[in-house]
Amino acid sequence: MKINPLKGMKDYLPAEQKLRDYVQGRILETYRASGFERISTPMLEDMENLDKSEGGDNLNLIFKVLKRGDKLASALTAGNEKDLSDMGLRYDLTLPLSRYYAANRDKLPTPFKVIQTDRVFRAERPQKGRMREFVQCDIDILGDASCNAEIELIDVTARALLGIGFNDFTVNINDRRILRGMLTNMGFAADTLDSVCITFDKLDKIGTEGVAKELTEKQFPESAIAALTDFLAKGEFSLETISGLCEDKTLGENLQKVISTVESLANGAYKIAYCPSLVRGQGYYTGMVFEVTCASFSGAVAGGGRYDNMIGKFLGQQVPAVGFSIGFERICGILMEQNFQIPADKKKLALLYLPEADFAQVLQKAALLRSSYTVSVLPQAKKLGKQFGTLENQGFAAIAFADNDEIKWLGAAE
Amino acid sequence: MKINPLKGMKDYLPAEQKLRDYVQGRILETYRASGFERISTPMLEDMENLDKSEGGDNLNLIFKVLKRGDKLASALTAGNEKDLSDMGLRYDLTLPLSRYYAANRDKLPTPFKVIQTDRVFRAERPQKGRMREFVQCDIDILGDASCNAEIELIDVTARALLGIGFNDFTVNINDRRILRGMLTNMGFAADTLDSVCITFDKLDKIGTEGVAKELTEKQFPESAIAALTDFLAKGEFSLETISGLCEDKTLGENLQKVISTVESLANGAYKIAYCPSLVRGQGYYTGMVFEVTCASFSGAVAGGGRYDNMIGKFLGQQVPAVGFSIGFERICGILMEQNFQIPADKKKLALLYLPEADFAQVLQKAALLRSSYTVSVLPQAKKLGKQFGTLENQGFAAIAFADNDEIKWLGAAE
Repeated sequence: MKINPLKGMKDYLPAEQKLRDYVQGRILETYRASGFERISTPMLEDMENLDKSEGGDNLNLIFKVLKRGDKLASALTAGNEKDLSDMGLRYDLTLPLSRYYAANRDKLPTPFKVIQTDRVFRAERPQKGRMREFVQCDIDILGDASCNAEIELIDVTARALLGIGFNDFTVNINDRRILRGMLTNMGFAADTLDSVCITFDKLDKIGTEGVAKELTEKQFPESAIAALTDFLAKGEFSLETISGLCEDKTLGENLQKVISTVESLANGAYKIAYCPSLVRGQGYYTGMVFEVTCASFSGAVAGGGRYDNMIGKFLGQQVPAVGFSIGFERICGILMEQNFQIPADKKKLALLYLPEADFAQVLQKAALLRSSYTVSVLPQAKKLGKQFGTLENQGFAAIAFADNDEIKWLGAAE
Repeated sequence: MKINPLKGMKDYLPAEQKLRDYVQGRILETYRASGFERISTPMLEDMENLDKSEGGDNLNLIFKVLKRGDKLASALTAGNEKDLSDMGLRYDLTLPLSRYYAANRDKLPTPFKVIQTDRVFRAERPQKGRMREFVQCDIDILGDASCNAEIELIDVTARALLGIGFNDFTVNINDRRILRGMLTNMGFAADTLDSVCITFDKLDKIGTEGVAKELTEKQFPESAIAALTDFLAKGEFSLETISGLCEDKTLGENLQKVISTVESLANGAYKIAYCPSLVRGQGYYTGMVFEVTCASFSGAVAGGGRYDNMIGKFLGQQVPAVGFSIGFERICGILMEQNFQIPADKKKLALLYLPEADFAQVLQKAALLRSSYTVSVLPQAKKLGKQFGTLENQGFAAIAFADNDEIKWLGAAE
């Protein structure tokens, strides 16, 4: 039988899991202190819902679950590949949340401030920092159309990051509509802007030339591509300049308000910066989008944005929504690399017993010691010196014995 | 788009999720205080591993994940249903743990005392208390062949249940080998005992007649079935009588030792009872098996047993193993029905602001209040009286205002 986990998925050893539990616990603490409430949805979603969810490239990465019994038999007879599956593993937590809100709206407060921390799945080509199964930590505000929702999500997410010892980070922010306004002005047709934006989002990675090349391949009008290339060549990317190219002037004003409010809340603890090329991959974003980057790590450690049309697809009635997701795996990866030490809780003590011991008495003694220590009950080895060394390596601070009252402290411990 | 969760799966509202988080937190606290360490494994496992895992009926309930790309295309050409999938969602946490231990043994202590709390999946026909996606809370001890491992698992699991307010429960215990010894004596062939035991396990549900009928259908020797029926008719099911029918006398002695040790540890807080028909469904159990029942709820709320052969399948070398799994969903279901109240933490306060407020100042005020309360920042409604009522219903204890220093207490709160 195969002993390794499946490609792109991971077994977590106790020390790494302890770090993960600590990080998740601290993040939840910050979220909850701000009145956000946790919910949970199934890992599996209806395949049609997933297909229609505007998840961009992620739609190609869905793990599909095979139908069963008669349903599978008739699908096989029909021979249609699409028909073999009617549910799939979720690729993010935003689609399930939108469905959840539509299903449970009468039981939920307005605005609904919600936490989700859970696993999602993407059939990516595995690479460093990119897993096929990973945890996301999301907060969302549903039912608040004002940009106060964006401000609060940024404030809470930034405080969550600060709370786990991160501080060298920048919140990059943009409003897709400003970008779309500018692109419309340049001659791109309104109904093609999603596709233009998906390419434009890659500006940081593929440069001006790469963007022009991809847009040409996608057969956009030459004049529009030229106007965009000219603009990029000028390198004048201030919010004022760009929002000046966009008809709706309130967009630039609102974005400026978010930036200056967050700046005053951050009080120097982190940065916020306008990033005109920021789009984010998902097709479902409709307004502001944001992403947290960290000097010591390439790529984003958190990302999110406004998605005002998603819930409407389920409910038949628009509900404004904004979300911010912490890239839990990246955060944990960085902390592991930095050899992050979790603040100490109770010291670990091993209570050793001999084969002839009365085991009820051993466990009763363990129960008493447990008021001061985390107590592991373990059989005493014949070579006690060697066992002490092993236990010390395992992080035990002290040893007690079932048959006497001695407590032996290990290594540098008290 | 469909707004309901998939069949047999569930959306959790904030109040229920809060209870679930509380219960899981308390269980983890008890487990960790006893030196158990949490690990985590992927939701998906290799399909061959799952198929060979002796999971009994659960093997028919596996959600299989469809292959992708070229692999799927050639599987479809071959037209072999089995070939469409090479991984599946796990149906329990024991198989993944066994694989994990084989893969990571050099990095793990001996004995390895391990916690897993996570989701598992079974394509069951949905019914009350039986979901297609549900959470299990397991502890296991790997590498200890003595029955101290059973005693400690029972002690820790029982304390975890007591810790969340359960007390009217009984730990039912048996040793499969005693039952197998008796059945061998009655004339069942040794290599058919797994199948006999799976039927016998249903004694509580289908009675003596049902057991005899199913064994007849399975074409076991009439004489053996008659011997078993006669024995069941006598109704003399003490450990002494039954283990007397079994050749290996140490089995009865060890089981007696576990029962009396746990009785002295329980000190009346819960019961432990010998249950001769207890087998548990899984084929992989090799020795003692146990199950917790609760007078106020039909069916088991926790179950486990020894599975000394499972890790060997991965490692090529036997490693003794015992596990105990709390039926997290049943526990939470019972607590929900009892309208269980979570011990209070910080009181919930709503900080209301008007549209014209400076939102940075609002959030700064929220940060100050957060030292004493869980603070939700919310827009102030035009009809303030109605909003007070809504907030009180949502569990808020007090209201503060962004533009003055008043704190208004709601309802019966302080």
